[in-house]
Amino acid sequence: MSDLTRFSLSIEKGLFKRLEALVAESGYSNRSEFIRDLVRDHLVQQEWGRNEEAAGTITLLYDHHTRDLSAKLTHLQHHHVDLIISTTHVHLDHEICMEVIIVKGRAREIQGFLGEIRQIKGVLHANLSASSTGRQLK
Amino acid sequence: MSDLTRFSLSIEKGLFKRLEALVAESGYSNRSEFIRDLVRDHLVQQEWGRNEEAAGTITLLYDHHTRDLSAKLTHLQHHHVDLIISTTHVHLDHEICMEVIIVKGRAREIQGFLGEIRQIKGVLHANLSASSTGRQLK
Amino acid sequence: MSDLTRFSLSIEKGLFKRLEALVAESGYSNRSEFIRDLVRDHLVQQEWGRNEEAAGTITLLYDHHTRDLSAKLTHLQHHHVDLIISTTHVHLDHEICMEVIIVKGRAREIQGFLGEIRQIKGVLHANLSASSTGRQLK
Amino acid sequence: MSDLTRFSLSIEKGLFKRLEALVAESGYSNRSEFIRDLVRDHLVQQEWGRNEEAAGTITLLYDHHTRDLSAKLTHLQHHHVDLIISTTHVHLDHEICMEVIIVKGRAREIQGFLGEIRQIKGVLHANLSASSTGRQLK
Repeated sequence: MSDLTRFSLSIEKGLFKRLEALVAESGYSNRSEFIRDLVRDHLVQQEWGRNEEAAGTITLLYDHHTRDLSAKLTHLQHHHVDLIISTTHVHLDHEICMEVIIVKGRAREIQGFLGEIRQIKGVLHANLSASSTGRQLK
Repeated sequence: MSDLTRFSLSIEKGLFKRLEALVAESGYSNRSEFIRDLVRDHLVQQEWGRNEEAAGTITLLYDHHTRDLSAKLTHLQHHHVDLIISTTHVHLDHEICMEVIIVKGRAREIQGFLGEIRQIKGVLHANLSASSTGRQLK
Repeated sequence: MSDLTRFSLSIEKGLFKRLEALVAESGYSNRSEFIRDLVRDHLVQQEWGRNEEAAGTITLLYDHHTRDLSAKLTHLQHHHVDLIISTTHVHLDHEICMEVIIVKGRAREIQGFLGEIRQIKGVLHANLSASSTGRQLK
Repeated sequence: MSDLTRFSLSIEKGLFKRLEALVAESGYSNRSEFIRDLVRDHLVQQEWGRNEEAAGTITLLYDHHTRDLSAKLTHLQHHHVDLIISTTHVHLDHEICMEVIIVKGRAREIQGFLGEIRQIKGVLHANLSASSTGRQLK
């Protein structure tokens, strides 16, 4: 873990009490960790908004009986091999598969890849968890 | 403005530098005000998530040529008179009207009112700006 | 209201039943209006994502006791006079004011204006309702 | 794939043209598939809003040098073993680990689990991809 810096903040008395309550309710061990998380969330949003290098997860659902679908998904993933770190496949029930693709790359490229997945016939749902390479978060 | 309390935070050195850059880029005059805003945003989200008393704005668009629409909107607003503080009407062009309704009340009631507006035929778009009574933000 | 076109859709039987249930529960008078609203929501998101001409509402809260705040807000609004259609002011309680600014212009400009409002000391909360000029929604 | 039902929709002429453009730009093979996806997205949001059975992915980042962190994460995951289908671990660089947990269960329980992960000291970021069991989407 990196070295720590200490700095002080001023805050309205009422807002300070609500912050203390928030930290307590959320189960955080202390106020610093709670505020660090708010700052980190903000940084991750900024990385995606500015098309910086990002990382995340694409979660998609499909019916494995749809003809050629699995071949199309494999083909598409090979086309974006530079973005993909790994793929995990889960059988949710007799028909539905969930596939979770961990990705790293430019924010726009990841979003474009998601768009291509969504438009494949037989893909029932696909969305993105916008995370980070973590380099800015330490 | 309320009295201020001072407290100190510890934060990783790298994250501290990014926070400083964030504050500078965003044009905030100081770090405290930036962090207070992050805390306030979090509190407002919580108010809506927990169905507390909230305030906000419903913005809707409609084509004023749609028959009976304006009468239906007026009727609906009278039905929710306890929620409504004021309504502003703007003529965006020859056909499209924007109506902005300022509301205060329980979060779920406001969301229910929005749902009723959306389902009226001829309403082209309606959405909500989730704000606050501000009581917790000082 | 514009002329109507009729077209047909194919949909899985199970999904069709859920759509029927959705329409009924949401209080929509018919399936067409429900689906038109989904399409319009998608178009509005796209207008904002592509920095097209947009319209919307900025809702801000402040404590009117904060020194110089009201003058700063007026000054800032004059600086963005081309974006602003109207401003409505509401006294939420003895201390808190809500100001609702109706805006029209490029999506990025509106977002930039919001950023400038947020960074003013004493503004407790400010957010945006992303609506539309409605031109694409008819 | 399930049997298909056919039904017809009426839509304003201008909106129909924009829908056609949307479908073409997005790369969808046809209008039906595009609209089915809008309906499915709406259903998935509803599942989460109503605390129905849901599925999804929690993506978290941490610095593996943080003392005891990996043990705490393992402990917490064992505590929620009924929610977890699988966990994939990726080494993003020399310090940062990404862990992707595939979950299935009640929406609120999954969100509660996410909250517990976020508050662990050393977790740099954690968010949720809200997907579905897919049962309502076919």
